[in-house]
Amino acid sequence: MKNKDKMMVIDALELSNWDRDFLESLNKGGVTCVHACCGLWENARETLTKVGEWHRFFEEHSDLVMPVKKGTDILEAKEQGKIGIILGTQNTSALEDELALVSVFNDLGVKIMQLTYNNQNLIGSSCYEETDTGLSRYGKLVVKEMNRVGMLIDLSHVGEQTSLDAIKLSTRPVAITHANPDWIYPSNRNKSREVLTALRDNGGVLGICAYPHLISGKETTIEEFSDLIIKTVEFMGEDQVGIGTDLTLNMSTDFLHWMRMGRWTHEMDYGAGSKENPSWPEWPEWFQTPEDFPNIIEGLRNKGMKEEVIEKVMGGNWLRFFTESFNNEKEAISCASHT
Amino acid sequence: MKNKDKMMVIDALELSNWDRDFLESLNKGGVTCVHACCGLWENARETLTKVGEWHRFFEEHSDLVMPVKKGTDILEAKEQGKIGIILGTQNTSALEDELALVSVFNDLGVKIMQLTYNNQNLIGSSCYEETDTGLSRYGKLVVKEMNRVGMLIDLSHVGEQTSLDAIKLSTRPVAITHANPDWIYPSNRNKSREVLTALRDNGGVLGICAYPHLISGKETTIEEFSDLIIKTVEFMGEDQVGIGTDLTLNMSTDFLHWMRMGRWTHEMDYGAGSKENPSWPEWPEWFQTPEDFPNIIEGLRNKGMKEEVIEKVMGGNWLRFFTESFNNEKEAISCASHT
Repeated sequence: MKNKDKMMVIDALELSNWDRDFLESLNKGGVTCVHACCGLWENARETLTKVGEWHRFFEEHSDLVMPVKKGTDILEAKEQGKIGIILGTQNTSALEDELALVSVFNDLGVKIMQLTYNNQNLIGSSCYEETDTGLSRYGKLVVKEMNRVGMLIDLSHVGEQTSLDAIKLSTRPVAITHANPDWIYPSNRNKSREVLTALRDNGGVLGICAYPHLISGKETTIEEFSDLIIKTVEFMGEDQVGIGTDLTLNMSTDFLHWMRMGRWTHEMDYGAGSKENPSWPEWPEWFQTPEDFPNIIEGLRNKGMKEEVIEKVMGGNWLRFFTESFNNEKEAISCASHT
Repeated sequence: MKNKDKMMVIDALELSNWDRDFLESLNKGGVTCVHACCGLWENARETLTKVGEWHRFFEEHSDLVMPVKKGTDILEAKEQGKIGIILGTQNTSALEDELALVSVFNDLGVKIMQLTYNNQNLIGSSCYEETDTGLSRYGKLVVKEMNRVGMLIDLSHVGEQTSLDAIKLSTRPVAITHANPDWIYPSNRNKSREVLTALRDNGGVLGICAYPHLISGKETTIEEFSDLIIKTVEFMGEDQVGIGTDLTLNMSTDFLHWMRMGRWTHEMDYGAGSKENPSWPEWPEWFQTPEDFPNIIEGLRNKGMKEEVIEKVMGGNWLRFFTESFNNEKEAISCASHT
């Protein structure tokens, strides 16, 4: 069966070493669209370089991959059997202190920005800061501007208060692309009942994360991961849960250090890891590469989840949500008035 | 008569202080589309700021102005009675030493880049350098990359040898958006018979320039300016001449100094001016504001130019040429095979 006839699979975050083999692996796994991390600590100029590297990648492998800026691009990727890439940054460092850059990076196809990465920034605070005073003055303007241009707000690494502020202020639904309920898997990076309630009530979508540190490590069974999805669907509703694996494949230790330490510390910081578990995590045996996405589908089927709910969780929800979210505010209002 | 029913007027370079009054003035002058200068000496990061300022301008005056990235956008601007803006830089400084930024800035709608401004740069030499060794190694790659993505090469301020090299290497026609034949008006900034022959033979278009230093100053009569156009059409052919006024209105002396001296000199440099004539030039009485475009049409009619040739020169040629040039290489080949 060709990918275009299979279930739509969308992964709402991957941070891997992109090459041709990786694209083929995604293709074998039946994946149509991936939100790819295009920046962690990079400033505006450095983010241009990252975008330029993606342009090159799109060009050099144009038979296998294409950029996604609109929901219709995801459908086109599906039709053509290609991998559609949504560029996003896991930080707002690319904006520096310049409000107009929201629109500029949106134009460049950076369609998702996480308000903060692991540290407090000009906009708000992260899940690892001791104190989170919520959205800053600039942060409030950035949220409104992201709403206006149709750049999706991501709260995955964002702190509790900043998340609540952003959900309250945002006139459009926001996303948590890669995190889990913290009452199922306790972690600073997972999300409280209060945040997920607010996310759900604002119409947002949560991407269930397979990053080993956010579940029970490599020992997590596919049954347990399926249960996580099922319980989250029970809480969020079947239209508001997707997958955001946070897959990090073939990345160097240097990159791990950049990811965690950026330029902001000279001491080791473990991010979601720990002193006892400082390296790239090992992944569960049922999710070693993107070829293993069918194992998740199979896991949900074995638990008796209805096929139409599986389709929503594996990609249908993100397709609908990204399609709506990537429209600018005027387009969004125009679409809403036609439904 | 509404603008949409009038002759299409396109100005291939203006460098004015853009505000609402200026837009209304263009509208009164019957102008549909302007190539607006979005950078002179700015590096990549600074050019992002300039693009961001344009985004704001587009948003705040969206009833009067719209961005142009494709030929069809020019037609839409005409239909809606708006001013369509093509962003371009009069330098390749925005690219710094990074080839991938051609594609990145193209994506941002910077659809025209002049290979050099008044000084030698990483790509080639300007019309004011003593020696012009032609396109650099990097410059050759930039020309090819601009060809590929559909960013138009502009040679207006570019030196003789670099211009000849670029025309020879480019697989697509290039432009000189704002300069005149130097055998009619001698000036470093005007163009030799050799360069204009090469431009013509490569299918390029020359924009006749009303910048006073490139004609006979403010004393130039509309009859003389019309003769300049007519003689240039005789040389280039009626399909390869347009207008590029280089209009600079309401600009400060600070900006004049930035335009001429950038950060590269601490001594006064006069650009196309001179020690005797160091300020912003005064413009001929028949071209004081964009409302005066009809005077040029009238001047050509008074000289007996055929109406269909006037239409080509005033906008038809740029419309055709920009439409073709802003397509990427694949689109251009696909269009060509359908004609």
